[in-house]
Amino acid sequence: MEGKTQIQEAIKIQGEVVRRMKSEKASKEQIDKEVAKLLELKAQLGGDDGKHQFVLKTAKGTRDYNPKQMAIREKVFNTIISCFKRHGAETIDTPVFELKETLTGKYGEDSKLIYDLKDQGGELLSLRYDLTVPFARYLAMNKITNIKRYHIAKVYRRDNPAMTRGRYREFYQCDFDIAGQYDGMVPDAECLRIVHEILSELDLGDFRIKVNDRRILDGMFAVSGVPDDMFRTICSTVDKLDKMPWEDVKREMVNEKGLSEEAADQIGKYVSMQGGMDLAERLLQDHKMSQSKQACAGLSDIKLLFSYLQLFQVTDKVVFDLSLARGLDYYTGVIYEAVLSQPGVQSSSNEVQNGSPADECISVGSVAGGGRYDGLVGMFDPNGKKVPCVGVSIGIERIFSFMEQKAEALALKIRTTEVQVMVASAQKNLMEERLKLVTELWNAGIKAEVMYKRNPKLLSQLQHCEDSGIPLVAILGEQELKDGVVKLRVVATREEVDISRATLIEEIRRRTSEA
Amino acid sequence: MEGKTQIQEAIKIQGEVVRRMKSEKASKEQIDKEVAKLLELKAQLGGDDGKHQFVLKTAKGTRDYNPKQMAIREKVFNTIISCFKRHGAETIDTPVFELKETLTGKYGEDSKLIYDLKDQGGELLSLRYDLTVPFARYLAMNKITNIKRYHIAKVYRRDNPAMTRGRYREFYQCDFDIAGQYDGMVPDAECLRIVHEILSELDLGDFRIKVNDRRILDGMFAVSGVPDDMFRTICSTVDKLDKMPWEDVKREMVNEKGLSEEAADQIGKYVSMQGGMDLAERLLQDHKMSQSKQACAGLSDIKLLFSYLQLFQVTDKVVFDLSLARGLDYYTGVIYEAVLSQPGVQSSSNEVQNGSPADECISVGSVAGGGRYDGLVGMFDPNGKKVPCVGVSIGIERIFSFMEQKAEALALKIRTTEVQVMVASAQKNLMEERLKLVTELWNAGIKAEVMYKRNPKLLSQLQHCEDSGIPLVAILGEQELKDGVVKLRVVATREEVDISRATLIEEIRRRTSEA
Repeated sequence: MEGKTQIQEAIKIQGEVVRRMKSEKASKEQIDKEVAKLLELKAQLGGDDGKHQFVLKTAKGTRDYNPKQMAIREKVFNTIISCFKRHGAETIDTPVFELKETLTGKYGEDSKLIYDLKDQGGELLSLRYDLTVPFARYLAMNKITNIKRYHIAKVYRRDNPAMTRGRYREFYQCDFDIAGQYDGMVPDAECLRIVHEILSELDLGDFRIKVNDRRILDGMFAVSGVPDDMFRTICSTVDKLDKMPWEDVKREMVNEKGLSEEAADQIGKYVSMQGGMDLAERLLQDHKMSQSKQACAGLSDIKLLFSYLQLFQVTDKVVFDLSLARGLDYYTGVIYEAVLSQPGVQSSSNEVQNGSPADECISVGSVAGGGRYDGLVGMFDPNGKKVPCVGVSIGIERIFSFMEQKAEALALKIRTTEVQVMVASAQKNLMEERLKLVTELWNAGIKAEVMYKRNPKLLSQLQHCEDSGIPLVAILGEQELKDGVVKLRVVATREEVDISRATLIEEIRRRTSEA
Repeated sequence: MEGKTQIQEAIKIQGEVVRRMKSEKASKEQIDKEVAKLLELKAQLGGDDGKHQFVLKTAKGTRDYNPKQMAIREKVFNTIISCFKRHGAETIDTPVFELKETLTGKYGEDSKLIYDLKDQGGELLSLRYDLTVPFARYLAMNKITNIKRYHIAKVYRRDNPAMTRGRYREFYQCDFDIAGQYDGMVPDAECLRIVHEILSELDLGDFRIKVNDRRILDGMFAVSGVPDDMFRTICSTVDKLDKMPWEDVKREMVNEKGLSEEAADQIGKYVSMQGGMDLAERLLQDHKMSQSKQACAGLSDIKLLFSYLQLFQVTDKVVFDLSLARGLDYYTGVIYEAVLSQPGVQSSSNEVQNGSPADECISVGSVAGGGRYDGLVGMFDPNGKKVPCVGVSIGIERIFSFMEQKAEALALKIRTTEVQVMVASAQKNLMEERLKLVTELWNAGIKAEVMYKRNPKLLSQLQHCEDSGIPLVAILGEQELKDGVVKLRVVATREEVDISRATLIEEIRRRTSEA
């Protein structure tokens, strides 16, 4: 491998030498000598690996975003960021890689999906797996005890991606978190309000936000007779309820995990329950559930949460759902997940989506998720000092796919530039005049383009406007120059009108602010 | 290492078991048994590595951006992106890592600075080193022959960073490139116009844009008597002219690289030349320089470039400077570099900055650089099909530092949020009323905040406004609720006025649009 690279390098240099000798008109003998050297090198490479063919692709599980995809992405980001800013969030950024040990012990089984960097001497590094652990590290490192921040960035998971279903190894996460010791459930309620605002504004169709609490789950397991050391494994089975029917979930609990039939049935009764504040009230009276202090604490908080959600005017979409589990270890209190009722224009995906909301398996149609994690920051603090946190992760990769599909289905024309005016000419030899005019427009802050050919055809200039959605063309010709005017053409209507150079800027501003 | 991690994992789980048993009020015997197991595990770890102390830091050469830094960054990005959009650019994105072989043979000696990912099975991957090579790969892969695009993203170099001087291993690049077969020098001139616009708008003080051409350099070396195979090494010595005096550069050429004294002196004459179109004209008449076809082609293009720069109104800052070399291999024509005349508020840095413009060593004060690279895309095309490209990279890391220093020096107050109104109360038990009001504001699209405590002190609510620059406070009290009004307080003047609930939104909009 090393040898091959060196030979390739040598071939490149030798090729350059030959090229330069030719362009500098060196003697034929000299050139021939250098060409011979080049051929020899190439033969060497051929002998080493004759079939070597350069592979032109992106790394497995990754993709480029083309301008159209970027335009959609920008629109989605703007909506989401506006919402975060409306709620007074700051933003931070952290490096794409962390010390390996920073990530160690945070993701349970999924740790095997972490990308490690090669040991090239120095620290052992890994690519971030989510934005939550770097956030907790940031808080502990800077001794920050309260902050409301968002962070939009790419994370990395060595998963086996099904890219046709929108799952990638490199994907965006879009997190909003509130850290700080506050009176109960107000920040939690604000996170749900934010999910409600974003999903409504993005116009993704109807949605539902499921809410539960880690303490209610644990309490439910305890009072149903699940042994303490099985809480986690049973929880992860419950987590599958959105992908498989109760019978299969029960079978896994009993047959694979060895839970008693009675315990499973008791769990089955609870996890079928959905409701609002009333359900929390009812469960507080439930003779079994009320035996668990943890469950009672969780249920009281759910009641309080719903009272705030009413004030925030979002109860229409929120449902208290005892089957919501969310696999992630670090949650300690309320958890939630938003699902689309109509799973996209093209509902082919009957698969768990990973390049998606939060940090583990998310059900079909899930577009946001999060919860309270009061212990994570303490894992980084040398004295274990805790900073309570609650947050939400918007599943923007899924939202991107949805928007892309929608744009395609509706054959929407998506502009990839914001150009307002194309400076064109109908006659030859007016390049300099075009450049002069486009400079005037740029000076006035108008978004303008000019073709880079000396003598482009008018038709091709107009065609470019059609293709890229430029609304106006400023056409120059000998006559217009003599008259001190510009022919302003509206691309959509083909209407043309002469505008004096003195008022052109004003006229363009007037017309483009209308649009 | 592996064993240690497993033990740490086991300790975590065991700790959790103990915690839960306690919270579930298990029997003392049971708890004691589990605590004993926990202590045993801890002892095991201690024996393995007693001194192990978790290191709370970011990876070497990287940093977090705090909200204040992010606010500055956002401002700079907005200015730059607006300019790119004004010139009709689209944007693309590529993955943070590429196949290792995509980067192979593109960076010469600097290839050793590339971060590789660990071989975890599958493809060999590396973190991107710049945005230009991924761009060329993208064009070849998608058979794109013309595009005008910008790309802002982080790149990675395993350099020995001097972070105090603003050099990092992870840093932003901010590239604008025009690909396509066009009539000469128009896209090249637009790149310079863009540099001019951005540096002017960012208000970084006076600047200069140096321009040269790779062909003029090569021709100059040829007519000065530099042997063909020494072009590159002599070029890289010339590149040091902005950091050391001519005498030292000459000494390196003659003593270290073995160039003849006469050739060095001839080069010395040329590289001291600076001017505009007139200098290009004069050199076309120069009896030595005119012997090189390459040099003549470069000089004619410089003349043409300056004629377009005049139309673009940027010649005030552009200078044709024969000492500008730029080390990167892939340049084939015009090259340029922008330098600040006053190198920042705090001119401590007398060092080459790497987290900076383009792709190699950049001189003191350099804030942008680029050039024409007509051969790079062809290196990726299976048939070697070339796509001519010209581009510029804005050195935003350096610009960030500059802005940060400026903000600090002028003690500027930088807002990290955009909140317009704080909803506060002077009395207790008004949490619900505050939440109701803030919901009304959010519904109207107003950026508003509320404190998460049930009964915060008015003083601390006002203090928060002072600290974070919130201009207005909407104060609720029993009396205001009775009267159907809100007391609107202007934080700056402390002026307070009662506004009816019905007109509050309108009033806030009026006041904040004024600001």
